[in-house]
Amino acid sequence: METSSPAARRDPLPTEVSELVAQARQGRPRAVARLISLVENGSPLLREVTAELCAARPSRARVIGLTGSPGVGKSTSTGMLVQAFRKLGRRVGVLAVDPSSPFTGGALLGDRVRMQDHATDPEVFIRSMASRGHLGGLSWATPQALRVLDAAGCEVVLVETVGVGQAEVDIASLADTTVVLLAPGMGDGVQAAKAGILEVADVFVVNKADRDGAQAVVRELRNMTAQIEGPWRPPIVTTVASRGEGAEDVVAALDAHLTYLEESGELGRRRRVRARDEIESIAVAALRTRFAHLHGDRRLDALAERVVAGGLDPYTAADELMDAAG
Amino acid sequence: METSSPAARRDPLPTEVSELVAQARQGRPRAVARLISLVENGSPLLREVTAELCAARPSRARVIGLTGSPGVGKSTSTGMLVQAFRKLGRRVGVLAVDPSSPFTGGALLGDRVRMQDHATDPEVFIRSMASRGHLGGLSWATPQALRVLDAAGCEVVLVETVGVGQAEVDIASLADTTVVLLAPGMGDGVQAAKAGILEVADVFVVNKADRDGAQAVVRELRNMTAQIEGPWRPPIVTTVASRGEGAEDVVAALDAHLTYLEESGELGRRRRVRARDEIESIAVAALRTRFAHLHGDRRLDALAERVVAGGLDPYTAADELMDAAG
Repeated sequence: METSSPAARRDPLPTEVSELVAQARQGRPRAVARLISLVENGSPLLREVTAELCAARPSRARVIGLTGSPGVGKSTSTGMLVQAFRKLGRRVGVLAVDPSSPFTGGALLGDRVRMQDHATDPEVFIRSMASRGHLGGLSWATPQALRVLDAAGCEVVLVETVGVGQAEVDIASLADTTVVLLAPGMGDGVQAAKAGILEVADVFVVNKADRDGAQAVVRELRNMTAQIEGPWRPPIVTTVASRGEGAEDVVAALDAHLTYLEESGELGRRRRVRARDEIESIAVAALRTRFAHLHGDRRLDALAERVVAGGLDPYTAADELMDAAG
Repeated sequence: METSSPAARRDPLPTEVSELVAQARQGRPRAVARLISLVENGSPLLREVTAELCAARPSRARVIGLTGSPGVGKSTSTGMLVQAFRKLGRRVGVLAVDPSSPFTGGALLGDRVRMQDHATDPEVFIRSMASRGHLGGLSWATPQALRVLDAAGCEVVLVETVGVGQAEVDIASLADTTVVLLAPGMGDGVQAAKAGILEVADVFVVNKADRDGAQAVVRELRNMTAQIEGPWRPPIVTTVASRGEGAEDVVAALDAHLTYLEESGELGRRRRVRARDEIESIAVAALRTRFAHLHGDRRLDALAERVVAGGLDPYTAADELMDAAG
């Protein structure tokens, strides 16, 4: 009881980044939480934290993205998968990336009831992250949060996000394996979702498979995937996540995809693309800052004014901006 | 009958950009369509087209964005608004920005049945645009397509897009007025949508107001908007777009918002921000290209490889990339 007494729990966290990272590597939840907060808030320590996390060894965690329209049962499915991976003895991390409201300043938590089952399991790390619109979102904080969970020894990290359009593409670029969830009875949701999902899905899960229309969704997906020519055709798994049905089938599909990734060399390729994207976006962000520092915002404002007034086009304006930057 | 004979309709389009723009300014649909295709396909003429469009005069078209989850009735509502603005004698443009499937290469058209009513009205220009994932999307083609419709004399341009998360933010940054559509019975769609929509909505429309639960959605929105402190509190309008009910109320709300924008100076401010964003993103795209040209992709590949292997963090890698760029 001593180690979990209120006094012990309130031990001050180290302020040194290297010490925090060392504690995270021991799997201490408070250090993990603190590090994720640091990267999420764009702390001035972000860079130091990242360097410390990258110093030791390559990433080992397997990153699984879960995406789908609102209402398909993403959180319930994530909970089901956490349970399934725990049964296999694996340490699991969950990042739930939610749209954030600048109005409340916080992440909107969906139905996390099922997640609470794992709240006391020391081998499960669950974190909701706010996605902060334009410049933030998944792009900069999530890779570092993944590194924190990896450092904490998570063998599997599930990244859950509301997926329509751009978010799906973003999550696919972060994950080794992307699961697209669908459910029957979503209005024209399935149809509207169709366009983006073939691009990103490694595995399809049709949840709420006990409901009318589930088989129609499966058939529709089968027709779509039948046209895919390539080394990997996304399997279609049915689940009733609220009752835990189909968990093993999903895990089997995920394992099959991982085997494919490893044997084909695609795993390394995806991770290199991910690193490229990350480096490039950091460099571009630095360049933007350099723009702003060199000229203040006034030059850009003046150019924008002239474009709005008519007579100057934005391409010529961009040239002028860059010429001024030397 | 002579001017609409097949032979006359097949008159070759001019190949000169200036001539095409001149024809678009006369409201000729084929020239308008051709110019939008040029900008959408990222034609080498993109820059020339944009310069020609910007040469003459400031933009006059009022840009109204419509966004909402799949199934709320966006296309039907857009059709209803087209009709309402036509009744007022205004020339209307519609840009429907749809998620695109790289699989089929084309834009997914939703229910455009109601739009067909306007297919022969020479005062209505309707165009579906594909949003091409990451680098494309709304960002570069849409502002130029708006300029084409503006040149063609459209007083109102409706931009319709599937809105969840990022797309909502994008459309809000393009539009003078953003309409967020909701409907009852969307599962937890409304709740999930909540986070992003307060940020972007200038007007809320609760469509399918004849269905159970519509009043609950209105109440929920009323509670949310009640907390907004600022010069503009988004009104909440109910419609049954499939029967054209509520069209006048939406137009009245849009007009009230336009008046607010003009009187507060916010209209000019929004348009300057829009121009700033556009100039900046063109400049950053040019910088990215410069990166690639200077070093090929090999340097970045090598850095990515080292990040994946462990020991190099992405911030240091970005520094190395930029140092190499001089």
